[in-house]
Amino acid sequence: MVAYLDWDKTYDFVREVFKAYGVPEEDAIICTDVLLDADKRGMDTHGLNRLKPIYIDRIKDNIQSPVTEWEIIKETPTTAVIDANDGMGQVASYHSMRIAIEKAKEYGMGMVAVRNSTHYGTAGFYTEMAAKAGCIGVSGTNARPSIAPTFSVQNKLGTNPLAFAFPTDEEFPFSLDCATSIIQRGQVELYDREGKDTPAGTVIGQDGSAMTDSPAILQALLDGTAALAPLGGIGEELGGYKGYGYATVVEVLSAALQQGNFLSMLTGIGEDGGKIKYHLGHFFMAIDTEAFMGLENFKKTTGEILRELRAAKTAPGEERIYTAGEKEYLTWMERKETGLAVNKSVQEELVAMRDDAGLDQFVFPFEKE
Amino acid sequence: MVAYLDWDKTYDFVREVFKAYGVPEEDAIICTDVLLDADKRGMDTHGLNRLKPIYIDRIKDNIQSPVTEWEIIKETPTTAVIDANDGMGQVASYHSMRIAIEKAKEYGMGMVAVRNSTHYGTAGFYTEMAAKAGCIGVSGTNARPSIAPTFSVQNKLGTNPLAFAFPTDEEFPFSLDCATSIIQRGQVELYDREGKDTPAGTVIGQDGSAMTDSPAILQALLDGTAALAPLGGIGEELGGYKGYGYATVVEVLSAALQQGNFLSMLTGIGEDGGKIKYHLGHFFMAIDTEAFMGLENFKKTTGEILRELRAAKTAPGEERIYTAGEKEYLTWMERKETGLAVNKSVQEELVAMRDDAGLDQFVFPFEKE
Repeated sequence: MVAYLDWDKTYDFVREVFKAYGVPEEDAIICTDVLLDADKRGMDTHGLNRLKPIYIDRIKDNIQSPVTEWEIIKETPTTAVIDANDGMGQVASYHSMRIAIEKAKEYGMGMVAVRNSTHYGTAGFYTEMAAKAGCIGVSGTNARPSIAPTFSVQNKLGTNPLAFAFPTDEEFPFSLDCATSIIQRGQVELYDREGKDTPAGTVIGQDGSAMTDSPAILQALLDGTAALAPLGGIGEELGGYKGYGYATVVEVLSAALQQGNFLSMLTGIGEDGGKIKYHLGHFFMAIDTEAFMGLENFKKTTGEILRELRAAKTAPGEERIYTAGEKEYLTWMERKETGLAVNKSVQEELVAMRDDAGLDQFVFPFEKE
Repeated sequence: MVAYLDWDKTYDFVREVFKAYGVPEEDAIICTDVLLDADKRGMDTHGLNRLKPIYIDRIKDNIQSPVTEWEIIKETPTTAVIDANDGMGQVASYHSMRIAIEKAKEYGMGMVAVRNSTHYGTAGFYTEMAAKAGCIGVSGTNARPSIAPTFSVQNKLGTNPLAFAFPTDEEFPFSLDCATSIIQRGQVELYDREGKDTPAGTVIGQDGSAMTDSPAILQALLDGTAALAPLGGIGEELGGYKGYGYATVVEVLSAALQQGNFLSMLTGIGEDGGKIKYHLGHFFMAIDTEAFMGLENFKKTTGEILRELRAAKTAPGEERIYTAGEKEYLTWMERKETGLAVNKSVQEELVAMRDDAGLDQFVFPFEKE
């Protein structure tokens, strides 16, 4: 049932889909880069399967604009506040990190906060922009309420990623791009498809104890009667207050620098039950390694740290130790040969978008069989 | 057996002890501020009990200098690299954050990396300096190898705190100051004293499984046959790779910006088994909220986020929800009335330092009884 698509042809298709729904070509290229980068690195929850539900459907629902009229509403030598005006989050975010990098190259550091934005894709895309430019990259975003604070059972915080990327002397950057919850809904969906329970400690029910029945969790997350546990788990014993603290850090950095929305304001559902604009907030930071002891020195020391970590003694039964960004790099090495795997439901979405947009020049290999 | 000491008298005593061992008065004040701040906020593992073993003994062992000849070895508008020349980590760190704040006030952001340093106390002291100045504060430090990477059983990374503080419109700042391990050695010592097992998942043994016997863990940590698990625990299932990733972020930011030592270089033990200088690295970042939408707006939004979190639905059996820095503030409200509690072993250390330093003007209340 899984079909493998050619990367270049898929790239052209996705770009044309964005254009067909009103995204200008230059912006459609940015959106396509961000989307397929997730598939390339194995972050399958943020890739092609999101094109229709997260981007195209929201454009059609008029809760985000295909044309991104982003504007700088405040600026200093190292900082800026950008209003995305409900356009494409990826476009506002790309330009925000670009500006942060330009400021870092001139003054040593740069930081941009974004308001009135929409889903920006993977945080790692932007932090790696900085790493490619010889900078330390940091980014985060708020999101729909999912995580319960420690000692609470109510979903309040988004899965709020706190992402870092560093240039190294290796083939790929150090890149840590992870939610401050233990898992996300997509992981529960995967457990469900595999007929497995969800690990105890990752989801909290209304009675305060761990939920493990995957189908029940999926329903309860929709009802708001379950919430994700922060990194560190339920309660304090295994450090859950730390993950809760980092999720709060991201919520504050995403909202308070730009006077934006936060927590329960970000459900995407209005008082009448209808869909409303998200008004998400993001932040982007770039720090130029040349403003410290230089890029080459930074790369070398970072590479040495990563290699020493990988050379640590393995636990019995484990083959090797990874560093952040390494598995993603290895995934891309494999996938660039095999192509992009798409399951039946994504295949149907691709055909539906193609037909809806009248992009008849695209024929998918799974249609020929 | 516990005695309660007057805060002001203890302050004078600690300052005079630092001075007696060669720390200049101005620097002794900084070191005393940092040390007692930990006791005030309830971080008892980093307070008065560390005066003798971590600071005075190391000065006497000649592995750190009481006089801190810190110097700026590189500087840009927003950044600086400081060499602490093996002086007092607190002094180099205080000035580093002061400089980061000054740069942030002028350019919007500031960041300082420190090399050849020693134990700097609690990260939160420095991040809260920034918050008091209306800035976002960020800090971290590397430390002796303690945490095993995911899939490893070897202690490699320090407990590497990643700390943030934000100004708010409340009585106290948001302040998250926590290690990127789940627990630290001091917590195991506490479980041991209480006759309790250490929770499964916090410490990994050589066989790759969790150790829970507290006395056995304390010995194994000394032998290097146990390691702390990163936040998220052993393996990947509960997100251990995230805590491992954040510990790596701190290791890189602490070392690679200043070409310093890292990981196994930081044991403090030389090839001949003798004590050697630590050569720790730290980083300090300040971001001026006035460079975004202004301090008052930042404080208000942050306060609103924290209040909404505290107002979330509590789990059954839980009385209330806290935000980071709140328990520490409540602890100080209580302790400023009761005084500083010191147990028998700390009492003995205080008397020993007093007698060794000839500070006969100080008589402790527990000596009168």
